[in-house]
Amino acid sequence: MTIKYKNVYIDDTYTICGNYENDGPLSKYFDKKYKKDLYFDEKSWEKAEVHLIKEANKNILNKNKLKEEDIDFLISGDLQNQIAASDYMARDFNISFIGAYEACSTVGEIIGIGSTFIEGGFAKKVLVSTSSHNMVSEKQFRNPTEYGTPKPKTATFTSTGAVSVLLSNIKSKIKVESVTFGKVIDMGITDVNHMGAIMAPGAGEVIYNHLKDTKRDISYYDLILTGDLGIYGKNILRDYMMTKYNIDLGDNYNDCGTMLYDLDNQPVLAGGSGPVCSSLVVFGYIYKEMLKGKYKKVLIVPTGALFSPTFTFQKESIPSIANAISLEAIL
Amino acid sequence: MTIKYKNVYIDDTYTICGNYENDGPLSKYFDKKYKKDLYFDEKSWEKAEVHLIKEANKNILNKNKLKEEDIDFLISGDLQNQIAASDYMARDFNISFIGAYEACSTVGEIIGIGSTFIEGGFAKKVLVSTSSHNMVSEKQFRNPTEYGTPKPKTATFTSTGAVSVLLSNIKSKIKVESVTFGKVIDMGITDVNHMGAIMAPGAGEVIYNHLKDTKRDISYYDLILTGDLGIYGKNILRDYMMTKYNIDLGDNYNDCGTMLYDLDNQPVLAGGSGPVCSSLVVFGYIYKEMLKGKYKKVLIVPTGALFSPTFTFQKESIPSIANAISLEAIL
Repeated sequence: MTIKYKNVYIDDTYTICGNYENDGPLSKYFDKKYKKDLYFDEKSWEKAEVHLIKEANKNILNKNKLKEEDIDFLISGDLQNQIAASDYMARDFNISFIGAYEACSTVGEIIGIGSTFIEGGFAKKVLVSTSSHNMVSEKQFRNPTEYGTPKPKTATFTSTGAVSVLLSNIKSKIKVESVTFGKVIDMGITDVNHMGAIMAPGAGEVIYNHLKDTKRDISYYDLILTGDLGIYGKNILRDYMMTKYNIDLGDNYNDCGTMLYDLDNQPVLAGGSGPVCSSLVVFGYIYKEMLKGKYKKVLIVPTGALFSPTFTFQKESIPSIANAISLEAIL
Repeated sequence: MTIKYKNVYIDDTYTICGNYENDGPLSKYFDKKYKKDLYFDEKSWEKAEVHLIKEANKNILNKNKLKEEDIDFLISGDLQNQIAASDYMARDFNISFIGAYEACSTVGEIIGIGSTFIEGGFAKKVLVSTSSHNMVSEKQFRNPTEYGTPKPKTATFTSTGAVSVLLSNIKSKIKVESVTFGKVIDMGITDVNHMGAIMAPGAGEVIYNHLKDTKRDISYYDLILTGDLGIYGKNILRDYMMTKYNIDLGDNYNDCGTMLYDLDNQPVLAGGSGPVCSSLVVFGYIYKEMLKGKYKKVLIVPTGALFSPTFTFQKESIPSIANAISLEAIL
């Protein structure tokens, strides 16, 4: 299902990253960078993540001289069980809250919900935010890092940071032009260390449906960016689109997971992941380049593996989802 | 934030319960009842919950002679980590999916999102669904039942079942009149066995805001139903409303957690909980009584404790949220 918007704009974004992301090639695009460790003076990794997402939302409000009562909805989600980073952030904001979860595709989902609320005239300003934290995810989804378990090169590295996006019905230079809400896809893959393979079909389906619904050719977009497929998943998606739909993603396609880090020199294996990986790349780097006129029409496709450790222990395969967000620069 | 709707109706509901709920006083109102055990011929409790929520959605479509392509959005959430029951259900439906999480208030949230999408003209038919499973929640949130840990009488009992609600823009006898989206409230309570006390302030705030936004007196409603505060939380809410806002909830107030079971003779302590507890009471019992003309204006307030075991181990207090849904019978 694709919804087109006439009155939804991005007013501003605020991006915070951790030290690994600060060491990567896009560091200069982020608003705040933590360089020391992954605790940010908090006593646990989970609290450290709450710190980041709270700070992103506080800072975007302050930067835009907005008060909590100026915001109609706060829509947020993250990878912690019970989306706890978002919940514990939200208790410090006196704003109606909507909690969302689609794994690393949550950022696409919350932009979709927020944009739809604005387009319908039910909200004027909506704050959407997401976060992830490398150590929280390692502890929760994988083997605790203290075990030192080696990983295959298809594994990805959960990014640390938080991103807040201020959506508004007041015209700005960047428009949310449309959103295609994805469907849950399961190709029967069970390898928890190959999320790129799991998520590529989800991305492929939503890109295909987006182009079909909008009657657009792939060449319509200056840039198509998937969320966090990584270097192997990116190639799988190229093959999938060509084989199934005869669509060549071409030179304008890239994956945020391969862009956030220096893949040759940082210990991130197949690339970055987590809802904040694509969010940092898109709402730090791409957003600022769109404002400068480098890209005019960009299709963002955050990808999510709906991975539950409980179901994986029970030998279930891992479903995935992706959402497609069309951003347009009006300069 | 309250949104009023002119064009959102409940077309139909489908309710499934487990054996404890079947033994309670509202059993005759449910569409399907499992009476044997909590496995429903699946191999794990988590898969048993997926079975229920999938069955509720399949059956409501079949009952209404609808195909998946007739539904614009499937919006769902549950208590499993990564809302896995909803995710694994959704892979079997070729419908755009929105995953939501606000603990036991998820049902209020998804009706709010779905109704807003319909009112804005972005969807014609939306399927919203939720589920919970007693053993899944015991295993995930509390001490595994094999431990036989005794519980205080303030503890609640997670209900087992699934509920699907078909929202539509076509006039029917039950209208979703308005929704007030709640804020996250944290009163500093840390007792994981007293969720009623944790959630009562969240319910109180959203009821107050709903009445303020709609300029209504509490007497406007024939019936006000909170989600799952249980017998102690229900009294706390009465006190809270009277002390803070001088609002007497009166005789028309009840709590779904105290209605689903025979509290004197079933082993449910302070009452039922879980997103399906209020959903079974509202979309089984109340919905059918509204169709018969017993209630005309009903305010439903599903309540959610945003409880994360990880944060509780770290000595954090537990935030809560509630949403208020106004239903109106047009007979």
